[in-house]
Amino acid sequence: MIEPRIRFKDPYIELAHGSGGKASRRLIEGLIAPILGNPSLEDAALLELGDIRLAFTADSFVVKPLRFPGGSIGELAVNGTINDLAVSGAKPVALLVCLIIEAGFPGEALRAELEAIQQAAQRAEVGVVGGDTKVVEHGKADGLYVSTSGIGLVDRRVSLSAQSVRPGDRILLSGPIGDHGITILLARGELDLEADLQSDTRPVWPLVAALIDAAAPGLRWMRDPTRGGVATALNELAREARLGLRIYEDRIPVRDEVRGACEILGLDPLHIANEGQLIAIVAPEHADAALEALRAVPGGTAAALVGEVVESPGGVVYAVTGYGSSRVVDMLVGDPLPRIC
Amino acid sequence: MIEPRIRFKDPYIELAHGSGGKASRRLIEGLIAPILGNPSLEDAALLELGDIRLAFTADSFVVKPLRFPGGSIGELAVNGTINDLAVSGAKPVALLVCLIIEAGFPGEALRAELEAIQQAAQRAEVGVVGGDTKVVEHGKADGLYVSTSGIGLVDRRVSLSAQSVRPGDRILLSGPIGDHGITILLARGELDLEADLQSDTRPVWPLVAALIDAAAPGLRWMRDPTRGGVATALNELAREARLGLRIYEDRIPVRDEVRGACEILGLDPLHIANEGQLIAIVAPEHADAALEALRAVPGGTAAALVGEVVESPGGVVYAVTGYGSSRVVDMLVGDPLPRIC
Repeated sequence: MIEPRIRFKDPYIELAHGSGGKASRRLIEGLIAPILGNPSLEDAALLELGDIRLAFTADSFVVKPLRFPGGSIGELAVNGTINDLAVSGAKPVALLVCLIIEAGFPGEALRAELEAIQQAAQRAEVGVVGGDTKVVEHGKADGLYVSTSGIGLVDRRVSLSAQSVRPGDRILLSGPIGDHGITILLARGELDLEADLQSDTRPVWPLVAALIDAAAPGLRWMRDPTRGGVATALNELAREARLGLRIYEDRIPVRDEVRGACEILGLDPLHIANEGQLIAIVAPEHADAALEALRAVPGGTAAALVGEVVESPGGVVYAVTGYGSSRVVDMLVGDPLPRIC
Repeated sequence: MIEPRIRFKDPYIELAHGSGGKASRRLIEGLIAPILGNPSLEDAALLELGDIRLAFTADSFVVKPLRFPGGSIGELAVNGTINDLAVSGAKPVALLVCLIIEAGFPGEALRAELEAIQQAAQRAEVGVVGGDTKVVEHGKADGLYVSTSGIGLVDRRVSLSAQSVRPGDRILLSGPIGDHGITILLARGELDLEADLQSDTRPVWPLVAALIDAAAPGLRWMRDPTRGGVATALNELAREARLGLRIYEDRIPVRDEVRGACEILGLDPLHIANEGQLIAIVAPEHADAALEALRAVPGGTAAALVGEVVESPGGVVYAVTGYGSSRVVDMLVGDPLPRIC
């Protein structure tokens, strides 16, 4: 499979360029990565320094609304960065938090987000060791944006990469998908929909630690499927590994509330953002142990083996439906849910 | 000197809270640091990991306008983060760049900033190893905000801290002050003033490397005096070290253009932001070697010995004027120049 060289020629940046889906890929692969000389600008970077292997990652958070059922921007900013480290096989060690605050933002609201940051960091046993604070004029930053960066120590037992994935490997998913994205959508109150649902924002390191202990030699690749959802994460893997990924629709855990909202809105749960789930590709002989380990972690009981890696068609993700037919699962196109994280 | 416990009770965040001056201190020391459990949220954090000592820092940049004589937000974001590492005695190793882009931002303007980022990183011999991109609605981010985080390896020859500063130590300054702040102010075009001036944005690591080679055992403390200027940086040192700092006004290098603009606008050059200068506190027996080393670095020829550390009055910075009288130099109060970096 020869990949065409992507060129970014869009005259203006649009919301879809921040979706995590196809437009984001075009921006990153067609403009950002070529200029900055970096093949991947979304994952944690791995650095060998002295006798340690360090993972280093950063994310900005612009979620709207700032607070939502199950979490808030501060908690999301901590968990999002910790989770990028975790799916690189790295135990999070330290975080920095940069705040861009809009003038006029209430002091108490800032206090609440700082407390959310601290609680999330404590829960993940990671220190917030520094940061920065900027203030912009009223009307210029929509309340609060948070950028977090983190470093972690990569567990020497694992060596994760798309290139290590082999046909026959199993696809594991840690729990129900779409909770975060649908929660944010409903929290905006623009739709006449309600559901008893909350964001899944949480640190996935406990799940990763269990996976490493149980199945390190068989652990090939991990990802936390945030913007663009499971479909986008798997499509990126399929492209990088140049292999096919077959998933079984009826094995993918989806809450009734998420499925219902998606049906009404014409969305695919596979495209909806998650903030506390992970996908792991595991060698077949380690799959049972890995699944058992995930299910033994609090919050991991719904973990499932949802598919497998196949030789061909290369570069494609396809879902086998409950009726036995199959459909191609594409990356997210456009951005039905801007500012989800 | 007993410091009062600061409490932050302001009902709303205001621009002055982002100035780097007194209001920023109140926000950080009265709200952010107590909640996040961190004594200092502006400097690089130092971490011992395996056999290395790592410096880890992050900053957000919201400068307005995005491009100005001598630089742009992308260059500033790289140099600002590199310089935080450098003044911690750390050679910068890797950077991450997070972009928050306003929908409608021109693709070509983004390309120009990415190129500025890459050029600044290359100039400083540091790799951009990753990052993140978010897009917010038109009207919500003022074009582009950039958050950069960086890691560096601390040179084992130095051990910098305010606590190591002693009476008799010398205060060195790397070059003329106020260029960045006044350049930004004039670039906004809101004042009927023009001057042949450009930002001093540059990496200070070459200056730091020369200082370490020449005077490591005598190097006590360094800082790059950005927001709040030299006055604020020195006041923070005076407070932390509980010592007095005496500077000589006529030894402080200030360009005529900066002095002239400050006189017209009623500003003190000591309060104006710099983006390519450093202050170093050096033991007296190493001061000559340190100054000579700074002056030998391209761009360091105007380096000067501008004052010394004194026993008392503790916690105070004071300037001896050309006439021999002296005045207390306070931290920046309010924010005459919002969004300077």
